[in-house]
Amino acid sequence: MTIRIGLDWGTSSLRAWRIADGQITDARQFPLGVRKIAAGTHAQVLHEHIGDWINEAEIIIGAGMVGSTFGWYEVPYLEMPLGLDDICSKAVEVPNGIKRSDGSTLPVKIISGVKKNSAGEFDVMRGEESQVLSLGIEEGTVVLPGTHSKWIAIKGGKIVDFRSYFTGELFNLLVKESSITQAISEGKHTKTLGNEAFIAALKTPGSELTHEIFATRARWLMGGKIDDNREHLSGLIIGAEIQAAITHFRDKHVHIIANVELADIYEKALAEFGISATKIADSLTLKVFNRTAELA
Amino acid sequence: MTIRIGLDWGTSSLRAWRIADGQITDARQFPLGVRKIAAGTHAQVLHEHIGDWINEAEIIIGAGMVGSTFGWYEVPYLEMPLGLDDICSKAVEVPNGIKRSDGSTLPVKIISGVKKNSAGEFDVMRGEESQVLSLGIEEGTVVLPGTHSKWIAIKGGKIVDFRSYFTGELFNLLVKESSITQAISEGKHTKTLGNEAFIAALKTPGSELTHEIFATRARWLMGGKIDDNREHLSGLIIGAEIQAAITHFRDKHVHIIANVELADIYEKALAEFGISATKIADSLTLKVFNRTAELA
Repeated sequence: MTIRIGLDWGTSSLRAWRIADGQITDARQFPLGVRKIAAGTHAQVLHEHIGDWINEAEIIIGAGMVGSTFGWYEVPYLEMPLGLDDICSKAVEVPNGIKRSDGSTLPVKIISGVKKNSAGEFDVMRGEESQVLSLGIEEGTVVLPGTHSKWIAIKGGKIVDFRSYFTGELFNLLVKESSITQAISEGKHTKTLGNEAFIAALKTPGSELTHEIFATRARWLMGGKIDDNREHLSGLIIGAEIQAAITHFRDKHVHIIANVELADIYEKALAEFGISATKIADSLTLKVFNRTAELA
Repeated sequence: MTIRIGLDWGTSSLRAWRIADGQITDARQFPLGVRKIAAGTHAQVLHEHIGDWINEAEIIIGAGMVGSTFGWYEVPYLEMPLGLDDICSKAVEVPNGIKRSDGSTLPVKIISGVKKNSAGEFDVMRGEESQVLSLGIEEGTVVLPGTHSKWIAIKGGKIVDFRSYFTGELFNLLVKESSITQAISEGKHTKTLGNEAFIAALKTPGSELTHEIFATRARWLMGGKIDDNREHLSGLIIGAEIQAAITHFRDKHVHIIANVELADIYEKALAEFGISATKIADSLTLKVFNRTAELA
């Protein structure tokens, strides 16, 4: 039996999979984002949390911010177009790997991120490329909503374009750190509450965003409820993302990779713009892990 | 001789003027924004800083956030259209005023703010209405750039419309509190540095703002200098304000009220959109103070 370990090691968490003969047989998740890991201690962290897998595995493949300047080992950004084999064949081996208990070395490879640097356009991603290429989609647009939402275009099985949006981080900054904080509840999105305000805000022109952010405070001063205001602000910012993205990515159907709650919100929002969605609760990045191991 | 005291008491500072027979004869400024003043201590703060004026004055007129929920005494928002006399005749007297040294009472009046609450549009201002009406403009658009930039339309000597933009606060949040902080210098705007990046960013479509904010980090990862990146981000956010505002306020010439540095930046930015500007280094709000006193 061939045992591989796959890691999606991002800014906020470490997710690890045990892969036996190409199939996932175990999964673990820890709140140990790469920014929390001191330089030089990544191998030790893995020993503490998946040490039992390390002794039996043949290779570790890591994707995500683990390959960034503040990760374990910095690997370059690749340029598009990029298919599964392009990404997997260019995984970079971490010097010295990890020592198994018997003193032998377990090799560790990290998947490169993707950059765009042409015609005055700049963008980067690390990790999303592996999630998306593992879906095996030949043509289409994939949306990964979140702190820095990504929209990714695929043609002929290759990533040919992508754009990031500051959506989740902007929302959190405004809710937690700004002068409109008191006008907005901190509560989580609910399915029942505020969806009317959310939907109503989606089509506010994105070009008016900084005006509308200020107006959130005015709404509250004039009697707007803080729960509604939260949904309204969320609708403004997600709406601005969708409006900008759909002028660029013109598909009428997209694939959403997100947890169930966020996927539902985006599905509902996209429907307001006439766009249907296939929801993918999670992307295990399995294809990228397996293919990288095969090509190693 | 008639002595009046005018106050522009805002979120970040207290500015006070001694007005003798309608003319300013002294001016003082303190970093004592209303949010720093404990409830019930406003009269005391004034005694400490302009006590000599209080004993000789006949009235104090205050404009700005001093009339807000977290100010000295909350006064209502008025609805447009609003001319000088509309604003001044509706100033609200603070109960009990301030005691002079001889035990007599000095009356204090606070100018109301302005609100917009129609057709789904919400906005508020406090203080800017007094600055603008004191200019004595009959027709035109006035721009007050800053933390929450205001654009104000005047027709027939009355304020008929206004819009706020979250410009300065958004910029500061991103520079100081966000994931792109390390990609941007904290230094002040300079006249020599970065203006090319600033100008180049102005016309980026405002609808792409949340994408472009993220891209600031990508620019830096690909070798962009943090000083240029700061100017670029500033250009993006000020450009988004100007683009949105000029589709609403269609004047080809505007009046800018701001300190010299910020007025120069906005003049330069507006010129890129074919708009000329008259710069007003400061608005003393003198007309509003005098007219309110006359109508008291």
